[in-house]
Amino acid sequence: MGNSFGTLFRISTWGESHGGGIGVVIDGCPPRLPITAEEIQAELDRRRPGQSDITTPRKESDTATIVSGVYEGHTLGTPIAIYVPNGDHRPGAYAEMKDKFRPSHADFTYQSKFGIRNHEGGGRSSARETIGRVAAGAIARKILERAGGIETRAYITRVHDIEAPAIAEFPSLEAVEASPVRCPHPPTAEAMIERIKAMRSKGDSVGGLIECRVRGLPVGLGVPVFDRLEADLAKAMLSLPATKGFEVGSGFDGTRLRGSEHNDVFVNKAGKVGTATNRSGGVQGGISNGEELIFRVAFKPTATILQSQETVDQSGQETELMGRGRHDPCVVPRAVPIVEAMTSLVLVDHWMRHKAQCESFDF
Amino acid sequence: MGNSFGTLFRISTWGESHGGGIGVVIDGCPPRLPITAEEIQAELDRRRPGQSDITTPRKESDTATIVSGVYEGHTLGTPIAIYVPNGDHRPGAYAEMKDKFRPSHADFTYQSKFGIRNHEGGGRSSARETIGRVAAGAIARKILERAGGIETRAYITRVHDIEAPAIAEFPSLEAVEASPVRCPHPPTAEAMIERIKAMRSKGDSVGGLIECRVRGLPVGLGVPVFDRLEADLAKAMLSLPATKGFEVGSGFDGTRLRGSEHNDVFVNKAGKVGTATNRSGGVQGGISNGEELIFRVAFKPTATILQSQETVDQSGQETELMGRGRHDPCVVPRAVPIVEAMTSLVLVDHWMRHKAQCESFDF
Amino acid sequence: MGNSFGTLFRISTWGESHGGGIGVVIDGCPPRLPITAEEIQAELDRRRPGQSDITTPRKESDTATIVSGVYEGHTLGTPIAIYVPNGDHRPGAYAEMKDKFRPSHADFTYQSKFGIRNHEGGGRSSARETIGRVAAGAIARKILERAGGIETRAYITRVHDIEAPAIAEFPSLEAVEASPVRCPHPPTAEAMIERIKAMRSKGDSVGGLIECRVRGLPVGLGVPVFDRLEADLAKAMLSLPATKGFEVGSGFDGTRLRGSEHNDVFVNKAGKVGTATNRSGGVQGGISNGEELIFRVAFKPTATILQSQETVDQSGQETELMGRGRHDPCVVPRAVPIVEAMTSLVLVDHWMRHKAQCESFDF
Amino acid sequence: MGNSFGTLFRISTWGESHGGGIGVVIDGCPPRLPITAEEIQAELDRRRPGQSDITTPRKESDTATIVSGVYEGHTLGTPIAIYVPNGDHRPGAYAEMKDKFRPSHADFTYQSKFGIRNHEGGGRSSARETIGRVAAGAIARKILERAGGIETRAYITRVHDIEAPAIAEFPSLEAVEASPVRCPHPPTAEAMIERIKAMRSKGDSVGGLIECRVRGLPVGLGVPVFDRLEADLAKAMLSLPATKGFEVGSGFDGTRLRGSEHNDVFVNKAGKVGTATNRSGGVQGGISNGEELIFRVAFKPTATILQSQETVDQSGQETELMGRGRHDPCVVPRAVPIVEAMTSLVLVDHWMRHKAQCESFDF
Repeated sequence: MGNSFGTLFRISTWGESHGGGIGVVIDGCPPRLPITAEEIQAELDRRRPGQSDITTPRKESDTATIVSGVYEGHTLGTPIAIYVPNGDHRPGAYAEMKDKFRPSHADFTYQSKFGIRNHEGGGRSSARETIGRVAAGAIARKILERAGGIETRAYITRVHDIEAPAIAEFPSLEAVEASPVRCPHPPTAEAMIERIKAMRSKGDSVGGLIECRVRGLPVGLGVPVFDRLEADLAKAMLSLPATKGFEVGSGFDGTRLRGSEHNDVFVNKAGKVGTATNRSGGVQGGISNGEELIFRVAFKPTATILQSQETVDQSGQETELMGRGRHDPCVVPRAVPIVEAMTSLVLVDHWMRHKAQCESFDF
Repeated sequence: MGNSFGTLFRISTWGESHGGGIGVVIDGCPPRLPITAEEIQAELDRRRPGQSDITTPRKESDTATIVSGVYEGHTLGTPIAIYVPNGDHRPGAYAEMKDKFRPSHADFTYQSKFGIRNHEGGGRSSARETIGRVAAGAIARKILERAGGIETRAYITRVHDIEAPAIAEFPSLEAVEASPVRCPHPPTAEAMIERIKAMRSKGDSVGGLIECRVRGLPVGLGVPVFDRLEADLAKAMLSLPATKGFEVGSGFDGTRLRGSEHNDVFVNKAGKVGTATNRSGGVQGGISNGEELIFRVAFKPTATILQSQETVDQSGQETELMGRGRHDPCVVPRAVPIVEAMTSLVLVDHWMRHKAQCESFDF
Repeated sequence: MGNSFGTLFRISTWGESHGGGIGVVIDGCPPRLPITAEEIQAELDRRRPGQSDITTPRKESDTATIVSGVYEGHTLGTPIAIYVPNGDHRPGAYAEMKDKFRPSHADFTYQSKFGIRNHEGGGRSSARETIGRVAAGAIARKILERAGGIETRAYITRVHDIEAPAIAEFPSLEAVEASPVRCPHPPTAEAMIERIKAMRSKGDSVGGLIECRVRGLPVGLGVPVFDRLEADLAKAMLSLPATKGFEVGSGFDGTRLRGSEHNDVFVNKAGKVGTATNRSGGVQGGISNGEELIFRVAFKPTATILQSQETVDQSGQETELMGRGRHDPCVVPRAVPIVEAMTSLVLVDHWMRHKAQCESFDF
Repeated sequence: MGNSFGTLFRISTWGESHGGGIGVVIDGCPPRLPITAEEIQAELDRRRPGQSDITTPRKESDTATIVSGVYEGHTLGTPIAIYVPNGDHRPGAYAEMKDKFRPSHADFTYQSKFGIRNHEGGGRSSARETIGRVAAGAIARKILERAGGIETRAYITRVHDIEAPAIAEFPSLEAVEASPVRCPHPPTAEAMIERIKAMRSKGDSVGGLIECRVRGLPVGLGVPVFDRLEADLAKAMLSLPATKGFEVGSGFDGTRLRGSEHNDVFVNKAGKVGTATNRSGGVQGGISNGEELIFRVAFKPTATILQSQETVDQSGQETELMGRGRHDPCVVPRAVPIVEAMTSLVLVDHWMRHKAQCESFDF
């Protein structure tokens, strides 16, 4: 069951980096939603390698086909299958990985858990798997926008130690996409790009932080006690490759405040209950409170580096592994649409759950 | 479904702070495990208020009864129901909360989501709910210890801005329990206690950090791509009241390292594959790698403070609310056994899932 | 997970025949539903032994307490826990069952599966477990009636070989409850009672058929392809003790018709699409079609008989077992409210699922 | 969630009759199982139309491709995706069905539930969907055979009113496949074929009964109280198109026996506990008891007939519909491999669940 996510709007992804392809099945999508392959492709294109000179030069065409569940441009309510064939297969490119475990990759754990692995390009552990998530997320995002005017925006706030000043306003999509590094603060974006290029020239890599915000969210999403909105978001984010942390609202820094400093007092905002500050990050008691949802995700530096590293082989012998070939010195910019996709999936699912339990019956 | 957690070892908690009681049902527990009510009670006692002069003076007896699923001291394999009746009911103590929303509590969101709430003591949003988790966690912990010699240890590393030096060795239970603040570094523990007392005298509150480590874990736990071990741990932790963040291994700070600094190179450790460092935190590609599992959880300062705060009432009118009565200036020490309980629940569940899929058949 | 049922309106039952008690937790119940312990008790009383001289003389008080999830007479939307303590414990009454396997009971399979069992009164395999289902079903039934005017009615159509003529009209509750055997055709009911009494005098037992009908159901309930309405009903019914079969609409006999005889042609019924006949039983393609839902359930004769039977003991030795004491020569009348309860649970769950997916959004 | 089945060995099917294709994703398959596309194809070929002159002359090539989850001939433990493109598309062939609801088909209920439908060939409600089940079932069957020597055999016992004598011995696959009607009693098979041909010549259709048996099953499969083995089998069978009933062991007829006639007394069978008779059908208390598992499924006559029928159109107008074109006068023979597939899926899932809970730990 580990390859499905969500309860009512439920996705199941499948596929390895170097098998026949990558795909996703979406079960539970509401019927009658207008959707096109182009809308899905647009999100996939944001995720794709080779978009700019700071990401991997590896070209992946990643063309999505909707194989079922959509008829004459509208969802049927039956499972939507989306399929992205693999291309650019280079047999032999991964020969060394067959026997040697790449440090901080999943080679060793997959081999140990399953007793078998597809070593080519990481197999199932490849970040190519997120293609399915982004495709499904494009549909979730459309539901949010069309049915609720709900907007989700992720962007980078730090690369390595280069940090943007606090982003006060909800940034526009244009502001985020203006730079290939997807930081809406242009001077910082420039510095980030320089840093990434410097790392690439050394065959090294860096990580960073993504902040994600959602506006227009209704009050009431999230199901205590286990399926709190932030709990499901945390799971969604930590299920992404290379993530090491999640925080919502005031997060780790908020633990340095006193309660009297941290509490968000309630105020009347033009007839609606709101909070004067937003250290809660838009969620209280596990339920959205109508303020902006805001959280951050930590991405470690890419494990693949073009340097020689110590390791062991499948027989346990100590050896060396030299990284070669194509290499993405910082995956964080490409993770931005993935974070948005996972967020949209969590929100649609919880919206449907909320409607089912709390808005279906008038007694 | 939001009140159940786990897939094969699945718990469902129920109960409000001021109804008939609090309980948990555990479905899927392996049969034939020796377990007593006393073992469960011992964990509940670690969680209980009134243990020391730094927590709330509120006395809760929290006596657990095993109502089903255990026969002659052994689990039957059928659902285990554990029931803790509520006591110490003080009708009228919560009259003001009926109309006014406490800042950074769940009063407003519960009222908005459900259109009704039990306002007494927070109702379902009360941390009393975690009693059920701790009771179930005691059983999970016993399975881990008895079947695998697996040890789980949580402790506090920071309260407000008072931070312990890095805890190098896996601390003993005695070292953690030596101080009511559950920090295994005695001088820091003293300073933390002083800080908490100072906050209490001001009617204010503080939060902090808990670190949790697990040793003896087998390689192979975790199910990519969504049910990665760290993803399920993140959900478990963010499902706890007052949590704002989760990080595993190098966490947020690790994003400041370069890949060449961050990668954990593999070495041969006395015939077994291990890593020279542990920035991965014991999990790679979503699967345990046999190293120590290590993660941290951020707890915000307690929302309840004995000070006057601005707020609104149910009609949206702005008003003031004066915190009164019993008050826990720092809940983090009491959260230590809860973090251990949730960790144990995640691990047993994943161990069973791993055995089912990967160790059941020899083809 | 085997002790939970439903997806959005999800129940988890727990308890053995002779432990502390029996209970149920309902997760996902819509908030604001008025419900009282008395309404739940009324359904439990219909299920209870000792109601008349044709069922077991065993007296069980079966008093239900709502322990959580209901506040001031209304559901909170949080888990509803209902607890029925066991009474009438007769230690020693089951001594022989400790070593000998009762034929066609679950003693042998429980012992073999779990390696341990509570042999007293059947433990978890006792039909007392259905108390939790009936309690939860009472709430589901109220939702159906109050929100949709939907009525569920089960009744007996055959005991042993005594069969009622086809019941054309949807019978009233009064007509069903008029006789302790719950057959709405009085002359047949009389004959059934005589047969049951005759069996009791011989220490023997009989089974029979229950028919269940639902009227007022909206079109659209059921989720193909696996969670078809009839598939979930079949599972619900075969999850009841002593059931051996399920059929919907024309059922097994319908297989003797030709397609041209069996098809339900569509007609316009006062402006609504309906069918001229109802061999489909109210469900087509797994989805309710607005006609009466109708299905039947087969119950085997009670396994407990007051006669000597061959069997083996736990060591595999062949031996004899003499049934003693209290004995229910025909459980089918008491199963009528249980069938209604399970039906109501399935329908509420599917109604919520339908609303979530198909009625939540206007695109 | 309605398009997934199983808990640990979980399949999700997708696809419509006339979209891009049909497929299935299997999540949770044990790793290291040898499997080939040919083995899957062999089962699909048994299901395929056009196998003989008694089924539809419609040719479907139904060629399966394994797109992921299998590497060098062995399962990886990651999701297995199998894809069968649709072929033989005849645009316009279904024009009339766009507006008129076919009697006893799912046209009306799909349109009502979803507000939209793909009318071509029944869309998602087409029996083509079962291709995914058969493909997944081929893998489940291989696990059963290879890991446990467990054999599953389904066959037809009645077509219309032509019934085979009781099949005493577990029939061989050859005996079943010897006749296109898949009845292992040759004289009856001949008569069945004649009846089906007679129906086809009239443009009419017939249904029938399938019996399914499993031998070699371990004791202990099934999880009371809701996930009893027979309950999950009942759901599996009633989730198949055209099914109207399910019975296990003595079934509906068994309700005509007295308890003293019906009980299966236990005997010592060469050192193992067994039963002298098998009215239980291999399952007691919801758990397999080591005897042969045996159950029967009722299939209604095919709804598609080549005759004129009354119906209504989408606007509710009464009209007529003339069945045309290709037509399968009796689908029951082709349902035999589908019943086996669903049975295998249930059994593997329960075997894994049993191992996880009851055989994983020695305390």
